[in-house]
Amino acid sequence: MMDYSIGKGNYENWILGENNFSSLHLGKTETVMLLGNGYMGLRSANEEPYLSERRNLFINGTFNQADKNEVVELPNAADATRLDILIDGERFSLEFGETENYSKQLNIKDAELIRSFSWTSPEGKKLQFRFSRFVSFAHSHLIGMKMELKCLSGAVDVSIESGINAQMTNSGVQHFLEGDRRIWEDRFIQLVQTTTQSGIDFVHNTVHTLKLNDEEITAEANKYMERRKVWMSYKFRIEQGDNFELEKLTTVHTSRDKESDHEHYSLAEMQEQSLRELKDFDKKGYERLRESHRLAWQENVWDAYGFEVESENPDDQLAIHFSLYHLTAMTPAHDDRMGVGAKALSGEAYKGHSFWDTEIFILPFFIYSNPDTARSLLQYRYHGLPGARQKAAEQGYIGAMFPWEMAWPTDGEVTPEWGDIDIVTGERTKIWAGLIEHHLSADIAFAIYQYVNVTGDEEFLEQYGYVMVFETARFWASRFEWNEERERYEITDVIGPDEYKEHVSNNAFTNYMAYFNLMLAMRYAEKLEKENPELWKSLVRQGDHADWQSKAERLYLPEPRNEDLVLPQDDTYLELREIDLDKYKKQTKARTIYRDYNPEQINGIQVTKQADIILLFFLMEQTFLKDDPRFSKEAKRANFFYYEARTLHDSSLSLSTHAIAASEIGARELAYSLFRKTCEIDMGQNMHSSDDGIHAAAIGGIWKAAVFGFAGVRQTDGRLMINPRLPKEWGRMQFSIYWKGEPLRLDITKNMLKISAGSEKAVQVETAGNVHEFEHSIEITLTD
Amino acid sequence: MMDYSIGKGNYENWILGENNFSSLHLGKTETVMLLGNGYMGLRSANEEPYLSERRNLFINGTFNQADKNEVVELPNAADATRLDILIDGERFSLEFGETENYSKQLNIKDAELIRSFSWTSPEGKKLQFRFSRFVSFAHSHLIGMKMELKCLSGAVDVSIESGINAQMTNSGVQHFLEGDRRIWEDRFIQLVQTTTQSGIDFVHNTVHTLKLNDEEITAEANKYMERRKVWMSYKFRIEQGDNFELEKLTTVHTSRDKESDHEHYSLAEMQEQSLRELKDFDKKGYERLRESHRLAWQENVWDAYGFEVESENPDDQLAIHFSLYHLTAMTPAHDDRMGVGAKALSGEAYKGHSFWDTEIFILPFFIYSNPDTARSLLQYRYHGLPGARQKAAEQGYIGAMFPWEMAWPTDGEVTPEWGDIDIVTGERTKIWAGLIEHHLSADIAFAIYQYVNVTGDEEFLEQYGYVMVFETARFWASRFEWNEERERYEITDVIGPDEYKEHVSNNAFTNYMAYFNLMLAMRYAEKLEKENPELWKSLVRQGDHADWQSKAERLYLPEPRNEDLVLPQDDTYLELREIDLDKYKKQTKARTIYRDYNPEQINGIQVTKQADIILLFFLMEQTFLKDDPRFSKEAKRANFFYYEARTLHDSSLSLSTHAIAASEIGARELAYSLFRKTCEIDMGQNMHSSDDGIHAAAIGGIWKAAVFGFAGVRQTDGRLMINPRLPKEWGRMQFSIYWKGEPLRLDITKNMLKISAGSEKAVQVETAGNVHEFEHSIEITLTD
Repeated sequence: MMDYSIGKGNYENWILGENNFSSLHLGKTETVMLLGNGYMGLRSANEEPYLSERRNLFINGTFNQADKNEVVELPNAADATRLDILIDGERFSLEFGETENYSKQLNIKDAELIRSFSWTSPEGKKLQFRFSRFVSFAHSHLIGMKMELKCLSGAVDVSIESGINAQMTNSGVQHFLEGDRRIWEDRFIQLVQTTTQSGIDFVHNTVHTLKLNDEEITAEANKYMERRKVWMSYKFRIEQGDNFELEKLTTVHTSRDKESDHEHYSLAEMQEQSLRELKDFDKKGYERLRESHRLAWQENVWDAYGFEVESENPDDQLAIHFSLYHLTAMTPAHDDRMGVGAKALSGEAYKGHSFWDTEIFILPFFIYSNPDTARSLLQYRYHGLPGARQKAAEQGYIGAMFPWEMAWPTDGEVTPEWGDIDIVTGERTKIWAGLIEHHLSADIAFAIYQYVNVTGDEEFLEQYGYVMVFETARFWASRFEWNEERERYEITDVIGPDEYKEHVSNNAFTNYMAYFNLMLAMRYAEKLEKENPELWKSLVRQGDHADWQSKAERLYLPEPRNEDLVLPQDDTYLELREIDLDKYKKQTKARTIYRDYNPEQINGIQVTKQADIILLFFLMEQTFLKDDPRFSKEAKRANFFYYEARTLHDSSLSLSTHAIAASEIGARELAYSLFRKTCEIDMGQNMHSSDDGIHAAAIGGIWKAAVFGFAGVRQTDGRLMINPRLPKEWGRMQFSIYWKGEPLRLDITKNMLKISAGSEKAVQVETAGNVHEFEHSIEITLTD
Repeated sequence: MMDYSIGKGNYENWILGENNFSSLHLGKTETVMLLGNGYMGLRSANEEPYLSERRNLFINGTFNQADKNEVVELPNAADATRLDILIDGERFSLEFGETENYSKQLNIKDAELIRSFSWTSPEGKKLQFRFSRFVSFAHSHLIGMKMELKCLSGAVDVSIESGINAQMTNSGVQHFLEGDRRIWEDRFIQLVQTTTQSGIDFVHNTVHTLKLNDEEITAEANKYMERRKVWMSYKFRIEQGDNFELEKLTTVHTSRDKESDHEHYSLAEMQEQSLRELKDFDKKGYERLRESHRLAWQENVWDAYGFEVESENPDDQLAIHFSLYHLTAMTPAHDDRMGVGAKALSGEAYKGHSFWDTEIFILPFFIYSNPDTARSLLQYRYHGLPGARQKAAEQGYIGAMFPWEMAWPTDGEVTPEWGDIDIVTGERTKIWAGLIEHHLSADIAFAIYQYVNVTGDEEFLEQYGYVMVFETARFWASRFEWNEERERYEITDVIGPDEYKEHVSNNAFTNYMAYFNLMLAMRYAEKLEKENPELWKSLVRQGDHADWQSKAERLYLPEPRNEDLVLPQDDTYLELREIDLDKYKKQTKARTIYRDYNPEQINGIQVTKQADIILLFFLMEQTFLKDDPRFSKEAKRANFFYYEARTLHDSSLSLSTHAIAASEIGARELAYSLFRKTCEIDMGQNMHSSDDGIHAAAIGGIWKAAVFGFAGVRQTDGRLMINPRLPKEWGRMQFSIYWKGEPLRLDITKNMLKISAGSEKAVQVETAGNVHEFEHSIEITLTD
């Protein structure tokens, strides 16, 4: 069971805990307690090994394609976390013996993993264990580990095997060629390996320090080496009452690191420099390194975002911390050649690839809270332009059609062409998303527009943004199909956000987003022509504008039904049969409906996998299309209830959008309940839901539901709107955002909204239609 | 602990047992209880998984080179032996709960692995388990498994996950591309994979049958598939007293199988045919398949070799069974393109490569007991001729220089160039054997000579043998170096059998074996010229004979020391310093001397790793050089005591040769003790000595020590000599051999030797210098 009530005092609502051990539930804490710093993500597998563990270390951006049958993915790097421990010759494992006072905790505030318990071996030896671990936020290459051992029942002989193991695979797939392995000065272990196809060198270093009652000791230490593995074996005896400590400092560097990008930085130099760095770390020692790591989190994350919630349910504050923690751990803020994977750095699933999850679910947090990182993530897409152009060309279009799945920017489309083989028919399942799920290109245009509107970063627009918007507009213009009979452009044979429906036509989300993309391109072209005619000339071709105009004007944009204002999700959705969805709405496991219906049948039912029309409403209201009567308040309300009843939230990308929409229409109880469900995707008591990795989009969704939903923050076509609608459980929420580069502090209670600005620059916000302009701060009374 | 006293009645001295479980000692029974049929070898890892297990399935001859940094090796094929079992939701493992009446046994007679015990789960559920398994000797592609379960303490819910798992690696190295995976008719699982470099397709099939109280049942069966893995999950309930059975039949076929060699046998056909075959097996069922397997062993092995020993120590008979069992299991009698690896098919070590172990330690058994298989193994070398010619050419020689390590015949030399990196200096260790251990080419010539002398197989000689002897002779003639000063040919800078000594000159073993090779070539050339002048013309070049003659005459052959008849192992050995070797003679672990001396120091000490001079004496006495005074009885005796005192037997290739030599010189107690030590290399109580795999040469050595040592059987230049010297512990030994195609039955007691022939063909044997000619049988009185 997960236990969220452990944190006390300064750590109240900061501790994610597990209060009993089961080898059947290892995946949960491995994932939700992941340690990461954007450079790397380390699954929190226990030190002592278990059969069902998934011991993963992923280094952002180090993609490799193992062979022609495989899709490019993040390789599982060599492991240094495993410790094989013998107590008086018996293997130490929590699967046997007696374990008392067990606790495994992620201390979110300190970004530290701590595990403690006392264990009595089958032979009756009793010991107190404490393991701690961090992935440094101060030194991005560093992993610190510490084991403390106290003997409670007479002397014992202890044996510990620890080193670097490069026999790791991705479910049996080996991504590395074996390289040098050495032990320097009898202590410093170095192991090199190189990815098979992308040729990325990895240099792993590790060093151990042993202490008995705070004095450094040298135990009997033997050195071992076998294939892809090098390790030390320590043997020593501890007496009753002795405090034994093992500190292990590990670093990972790769030739993909930006600092190794300059010329003449050879593998040999990386080996030498990283070894020197480790020796420095070794001199500092675990505790000092941990302290600088802790301070880095405090300053750069907790103080910077300052997100406080007063709720009847203390798990809400914890969930906010959890969200900020993982958003920080997963995001490669240091390198604009890297994106965020759908499972972040916490599992093999989705192979580290970036989806639209980034733009729609993860990026909003960074746009408002950490614009530099948001910009880096958008620049990642910019670096992907050649691949996007290639994808468009391959499908017979022009402009840029962004890869549905993106890895290293220059890799282009990396969506697997074929999914698993149908277990019954033996035929491979075609994965259509890479071919016909097209909305991503418009989602990226939307994200650029939102980023620029919130930050006012015109430089970004000129350097990276315009070209992406123009290129995606060109793609759409070439993508539209003329329907001669109806005299309109259509977009047929696509997948919209509702992935239950394959090969639909005129998916409203896709059509409107494409329309938005064209309209945005025209607005940007006009603006650019005025502001920077030189750049305009180089980016906008003759005829572009006219083409976009003509296509946009004649694109079919689905109309709401007269009787109930319901916008049809696609050409046929509203005519499909309806079934009783109660059973599936209550599902606790994904894909429950597939037990009763096959994909073809589901295609014929009014059932939606995840927010589709509802997401469209949410995005449109932030744009210059917000006043379109099709997206009126009444339509919003009508569509929410229509589609919420038909949406199974069978994707972690769904609940947060519905939570925001529920909030907006004043359905506060429902909104809060949807917010809680969003939090519980990873934090819930389902001990298997996170086995394959964190749900990155849902993590972003927690922040979105709180800020866009409860705090009611929006940019609407460049204006800041704040219309808080706290749920009844929340007394107060405070957090910081940036608006046009200006830090704003928001303090919201049931009947008050206070906004403090960081400077004397005038800031304009709207609340419930009233425009407020202020300098230092403003306090607005809210009416419920 | 191993327990060899389990077998009773018909199974007395047939059961290899382990009587208590420890997860720290899994390697022992995995190896010594290996199941195999020459086509494949399956390590006897337990059904339920353990962290330290090595779950290996090797298919003979399916070599692959994973990447340019790796050496070609036998890949670890997909696994179908693992069963993941839950009892009332608790994982079943012998690492926890209570285990009673534990027994893991290899029933050698039936070639069946059986494991039984009762197990009480930590929650107190008590069950009786019995697992059995065989690798069919009747159908070489078939693995049969059975699990029997009886609930002793009220009803329990059982869950079993079982399928085919191709996530297996060789210590992290993946040798396969992923292929098709299917489930047919909800039962028949098929998984295809293909080796990455050699392109060998593997087709794995499996099917389960579930029975409750002897009635077939269909439990709740779910199908699962993930990367490189497909499996079924069965859930059912058993009541107290119920007998549950799970039978699992698995087959493996590869595109390297001979039967798939003909044209138009596509992968699709292999898939289809192997599936059809599995359906036939499924109809027959486990018990009938097991029975035909059992009969195949009885007829082809136990009845054929009929090796019986009456000893005070019953382990002696068991050891003989053990030796015959493994010799049969490891040897690819079905395919002359395949050899026997140094660890046979029982571990990753030595990568499935063939060394001189085959010719000198394994082949003798087959030459005398199963000449067809002996011929197949020699033909394997014949297929290696192109690689041997290439190796000679690469080193600047002519003729054929056989690869020190040989894999697929056309691969040529596959000895790794570099060994592990020196853990301290960080420098790679050069592996010299592939470059300078040259005696193998002469060892092969010797093996051909011995095979032909024992079998009289002139056809083999004409088709395969002559050319190998001539080509190796050519190699030696080109290899010799002329010493101008001493006016003789020498062989400098080699490694002899004593691998403690690298870069020695005139290693006596190498020089004499090379000399023998040349002399044999001349004898064969003369014989061939007379018997088949056509073939002679095509095989022997002008000048060959003269060159061989001149080189042989002037080759330096080390002379025994006048004072004590000791033959110098090489140019410097007898001048090296001597140290007290007592400590190392008593070693229980390999390489103990390396703890005190480094390789350079060992090079300077009169210490020998393994039989070198003593082996030379043993080989020479079987040849036309037997009457050379340098190999006189006195010299034999003197050298035995000199070198035995200096030999650490730090290789599993050593003890059996010394056992034979001790026997020959009448040191019966020592001979018996060395025989026991030979047996204990794998059968001893050291629970880690076999972790990396069986010691194939030592397995052959058990047979050699008994037959060449105690029974005193020899071919000496084509004559059969039998001079039994039973140890005092042995009352009688009986076994069958072939002599010139004639089956002979030998029955030996302390004072009698009875030989029965299979027909009325006259047979000639020598005993203690007396020549006996007989037809049906002969009884000879022995004097001690």
